Amino acid sequence: MAFSQNSNDSVMLKKISDEIMLNGEAYENLKDLTKNIGHRLSGSENYERAVVWAENQLVQAGADKVWLQEVMVPVWERGEESLKMKTSNGEWKDLRFLSLGNSEGTAGKDVEGELLRVSSIDEFKALPANAVKDKVVFFDYHFPQTFVNTFQGYGEAFVYRAHTASLVAEKGGKFVIIRSISTGLDDVPHTGTMRYDERFPKIPAVAIGNTTADELSQLMQNEKLTLKLNSNCGMRGEKLTHSVIGEITGRKDDKIILVGGHLDSWDVGEGAHDDGAGITQSIEIIRTFKQLGIQNNHTIRVVCFANEENGARGGEVYAKHAKANGEIHLLAIESDAGGFSPRGFTLKMDQRKINQVKSWTSLFQPFGVYEFYEGRGGGVDIDPLNREMNTPVAGMIPDSQRYFDLHHSANDTFEKINKRELNLGAIIMAQFMYLVDQYW
Amino acid sequence: MAFSQNSNDSVMLKKISDEIMLNGEAYENLKDLTKNIGHRLSGSENYERAVVWAENQLVQAGADKVWLQEVMVPVWERGEESLKMKTSNGEWKDLRFLSLGNSEGTAGKDVEGELLRVSSIDEFKALPANAVKDKVVFFDYHFPQTFVNTFQGYGEAFVYRAHTASLVAEKGGKFVIIRSISTGLDDVPHTGTMRYDERFPKIPAVAIGNTTADELSQLMQNEKLTLKLNSNCGMRGEKLTHSVIGEITGRKDDKIILVGGHLDSWDVGEGAHDDGAGITQSIEIIRTFKQLGIQNNHTIRVVCFANEENGARGGEVYAKHAKANGEIHLLAIESDAGGFSPRGFTLKMDQRKINQVKSWTSLFQPFGVYEFYEGRGGGVDIDPLNREMNTPVAGMIPDSQRYFDLHHSANDTFEKINKRELNLGAIIMAQFMYLVDQYW
Repeated sequence: MAFSQNSNDSVMLKKISDEIMLNGEAYENLKDLTKNIGHRLSGSENYERAVVWAENQLVQAGADKVWLQEVMVPVWERGEESLKMKTSNGEWKDLRFLSLGNSEGTAGKDVEGELLRVSSIDEFKALPANAVKDKVVFFDYHFPQTFVNTFQGYGEAFVYRAHTASLVAEKGGKFVIIRSISTGLDDVPHTGTMRYDERFPKIPAVAIGNTTADELSQLMQNEKLTLKLNSNCGMRGEKLTHSVIGEITGRKDDKIILVGGHLDSWDVGEGAHDDGAGITQSIEIIRTFKQLGIQNNHTIRVVCFANEENGARGGEVYAKHAKANGEIHLLAIESDAGGFSPRGFTLKMDQRKINQVKSWTSLFQPFGVYEFYEGRGGGVDIDPLNREMNTPVAGMIPDSQRYFDLHHSANDTFEKINKRELNLGAIIMAQFMYLVDQYW
Repeated sequence: MAFSQNSNDSVMLKKISDEIMLNGEAYENLKDLTKNIGHRLSGSENYERAVVWAENQLVQAGADKVWLQEVMVPVWERGEESLKMKTSNGEWKDLRFLSLGNSEGTAGKDVEGELLRVSSIDEFKALPANAVKDKVVFFDYHFPQTFVNTFQGYGEAFVYRAHTASLVAEKGGKFVIIRSISTGLDDVPHTGTMRYDERFPKIPAVAIGNTTADELSQLMQNEKLTLKLNSNCGMRGEKLTHSVIGEITGRKDDKIILVGGHLDSWDVGEGAHDDGAGITQSIEIIRTFKQLGIQNNHTIRVVCFANEENGARGGEVYAKHAKANGEIHLLAIESDAGGFSPRGFTLKMDQRKINQVKSWTSLFQPFGVYEFYEGRGGGVDIDPLNREMNTPVAGMIPDSQRYFDLHHSANDTFEKINKRELNLGAIIMAQFMYLVDQYW
């Protein structure tokens, strides 16, 4: 009997795979999103266009119900910005850079200071305040390349982007420059969110690409450098926008199996891997369940979350509503680690469920999934469900080698997407949802 | 004791990984090979430049001994070629295409015929000879996308490239066009080797890209099409060239642990994934063993094989010499499936050794290796060692999703290489060799 179940399951999992490999629309849909809308920071006009786009996509995919969920989001705008370095002959040279997300700028004024380089936060903390006062501090911390999983390297580097501005402000520095959190071998700067400690002045924080960082580091061995920033970025209050939700009604009950990603992106590149991939994979699952005529017992719900990048409000609002309405989520899966070949899932759920998922390994392995990371959350947008209601959550884990070449940068474009890899991510999430629909 | 061994092993495997991730030179070396030499069909001038390059690389990497092994290779040249389609208004339109490797051309004359489309070899075989006579036959067979491992799709499609010319010649057709064996969504044609059945005339065989194939297929629904080929390709006898070999002498004995790839490539693109990746990864292993001061018990040998693409002579000659000289190879590994993130190894060896390798899974898994494919050969260049002397062979298996977008085409360029992925391939082969050096 157990064997018979497994055999039927493996037939169905192959059907899901074949349908998506042969007829999958995620790739063409992602092309549409990235090329006809492009980047879409929440709060922007482009994000509003993406909301309309996602609604239409979910309807076309065959969702029985599609609706919007109100989310109040912070509005951050970049505006014009320039960073210049005074060269030894006294001329100013433009440097390629990006202000970090949520950073305040210089309000259109020039802010200038001598550059102070440190290679780590520890080195910075050892400096007396008078060594930092009025300086521009350059955190020349390199992405730790020795971790095989690049998300571990990102985890170590994250604090340089998130928290150095307030550390420097506390000691009277003028602004902060970080070497981008990037595995890339190029000069492309990577943005991403930073936070202020409200006790200290909100000084600007910017990122430079790896080759500019190398150049500054080299020059500073022989001379003092002066840098000048002029930027107009900053927070512009809040705005009402929406997450987009679509679902296929369950045949048996209204318990929910959720899959999603975030609809917003940073304001550079096209948000292709981060996270147009997750959005189009999730919508593809609705199309596939409908196309194959799967009679799902429970509700299959897709959520395109608002504001993951610079506020994480979409996920918080969703969990709050779900709790208030007494909704029961059997599982929530998020795809927000790029549209690369899948390798596994994070699993945060009780041990009995973890053991059951792991018992499906032989079903998953033909599709590239072999590893389960126990106890790690599923993603920024679905982890609030786990915190609020103990919802089982899972994060789709693709191969991580290329992600931080692209992440939050002008390089995150549709051209970096491979159709088969993108499809495989949709396949394994659809398969996981199918098994949960059968057995939970 | 077993635990202690494993613990030391895992420390050493991490050291190998860190050394290559931080200081690895494969990526820069591959840039040099692809950009300063480029494609390098064996028999060409470029291949001779690659031989000199590989010798120098092995010396610089620290090999104790470097030498050349003579290999007589077939010489195939492309020359000028054009393929035209007569449009409905009577004008001739150029089509993008490539003659298949080892194909004869039209000797500079126009060869023209009406196009006959078949979707499979079975469909072709059912046709009477008089339906084929004087026709140009278009095999419109699509790459089978439903296999998760693209090498399985390639395995099914291979016969269309290799054997259709003689099938068509037998029935009196003029030449053959195939839809490229390509997962790509573009118009790039993919070449690759074909073979003639000596009983039939050697008619030309060419490949068109997927979008041109779509276009022809579409047009043929409404009209008869005439195509005209003019090409100068063909076999030009044989030439003496070389495989390149380098090694680190074993401390204990002269048994050999071999790693390699093929130095030749097709005459389009840059041979970056196929197989500059395997060459530079293999050379990197010499550098790493030397840099880490590993006192290898057995000889660590790198072989850059000649003529994998259009004759496979390098591997045959190597095995013949090894046998004649009574050399004992403990293991031969080949990397010839692209420089992508590794996932496993094929293993062709006795069951005791297979079981031992599989017992190392927990050592390999942190580096992305989780799967072993038993009984499948290691690669075109090392399988002769297995056939001739029962040498244990292993093929490095990277993620396969992107390989057939690039394979044998103008798209196989250095820009498609990710440094971390390339390094990981070198890492897991070096680790495998280290363990074999310890325990075999």
